[in-house]
Amino acid sequence: MSLEAPALADDQKMTYGMLLYPGFTLLDLAGPHNALALHGRTELIWKTLEPVPTDTGITINPTVTFADCPRKLDVLFVPGGFGTAEVMKDESVVEFLREVGQSAGFVSSVCTGSLLLAVAGLLDGYKATSHWAFYGALEEAGVEVVRSRVVSDRNRITGGGVTSGIDFGLTLLARLCGERAALTTQLCMEYDPKPPFSAGSPAQAGQEIAKDALAILAPVIDDARIVTRAYFARNTK
Amino acid sequence: MSLEAPALADDQKMTYGMLLYPGFTLLDLAGPHNALALHGRTELIWKTLEPVPTDTGITINPTVTFADCPRKLDVLFVPGGFGTAEVMKDESVVEFLREVGQSAGFVSSVCTGSLLLAVAGLLDGYKATSHWAFYGALEEAGVEVVRSRVVSDRNRITGGGVTSGIDFGLTLLARLCGERAALTTQLCMEYDPKPPFSAGSPAQAGQEIAKDALAILAPVIDDARIVTRAYFARNTK
Repeated sequence: MSLEAPALADDQKMTYGMLLYPGFTLLDLAGPHNALALHGRTELIWKTLEPVPTDTGITINPTVTFADCPRKLDVLFVPGGFGTAEVMKDESVVEFLREVGQSAGFVSSVCTGSLLLAVAGLLDGYKATSHWAFYGALEEAGVEVVRSRVVSDRNRITGGGVTSGIDFGLTLLARLCGERAALTTQLCMEYDPKPPFSAGSPAQAGQEIAKDALAILAPVIDDARIVTRAYFARNTK
Repeated sequence: MSLEAPALADDQKMTYGMLLYPGFTLLDLAGPHNALALHGRTELIWKTLEPVPTDTGITINPTVTFADCPRKLDVLFVPGGFGTAEVMKDESVVEFLREVGQSAGFVSSVCTGSLLLAVAGLLDGYKATSHWAFYGALEEAGVEVVRSRVVSDRNRITGGGVTSGIDFGLTLLARLCGERAALTTQLCMEYDPKPPFSAGSPAQAGQEIAKDALAILAPVIDDARIVTRAYFARNTK
């Protein structure tokens, strides 16, 4: 039994193109995917069809290669993850995003995915957000950062860190299919969050916990900033 | 770069055993997995190592078969999904859960995963929860249902529908590793939810939206109830 809407023939459904890459975070992709899945078909995109490892080692299988990916996506989506900084240095990935991003209906990301959109030039002149620890890295790419959980600017929609993908997904679904579809999906997903603790932002968590979190994230932040600074230097020459 | 704690050798880490099956919901698993991943190793368990399709068609790869799965798991976890009712009829799956569940440190689920735990006898005498639309099905298995987002009863921890997996995961992490680990993880995941709409429970969503949601879920509910009733009839003979 499948979650996909049986009433729509495949050629009437929207196509969501979601980028995979080594070291993406599974939850960054799963939140938006499950929010959108009832109303379209998801293509998982990578260079090859070999299994792609997430940043925790779990592997997931692409459905389409860069070469075979439809050039007219209704949504282009890029997840974040501990591997983002590394893939930002891969010119073939950046070039692919630049190309499909130009013709996509929506260009979107969650978490550090926005850094990858930025160095592909897809956020030039747009407001966007990222994981809270990566606001600086995104700013250094020349992007106007709005420190919000979901930021919509024309057809660019970006989400904050990891779990914001659910808020992001429902926001995007409402734009694509209307509010009633988004409400029904929210209820099916039982998205009535009740966090057992209050540590979802640095302000709530306090300095000690923020220090612990930054110790985990620091190497990726430093690495990402090297790439966004280099992009900015090239872009403003 | 990987999210897993580099300071711990593999043999000192906890082992989480997460069941895969055809038609599970990716987000049911991704929420708990990402909440727990920094502090242990996840084994994805299925009959074979062939890719397992989720209820949206995306496929993910098991890491271990039933035969090779460690018999002493720190956590046994079962996700829900549109395929739950079908897999509840599969005696080899139910038997596997019954066996590993007896020796697991924690026995846990999200969404309709609790129905599968129930028919494996792992919730007999325990309080538990499920997706809101499946409270009745879980009650019909003879389980004492608590209509909450996360329910802890000794070493059984169960979550409500889909997105509750994040609340569930942080709750379980605090039990396993202490509150500081849970707070740091919540901040790394930026779990500061801001749903764009208020439709996460039937009461908030209202009758019209609840009707739409139940139309999507009805076939699975009916199918699941047949299995839970049969279990109860056998169990009380």
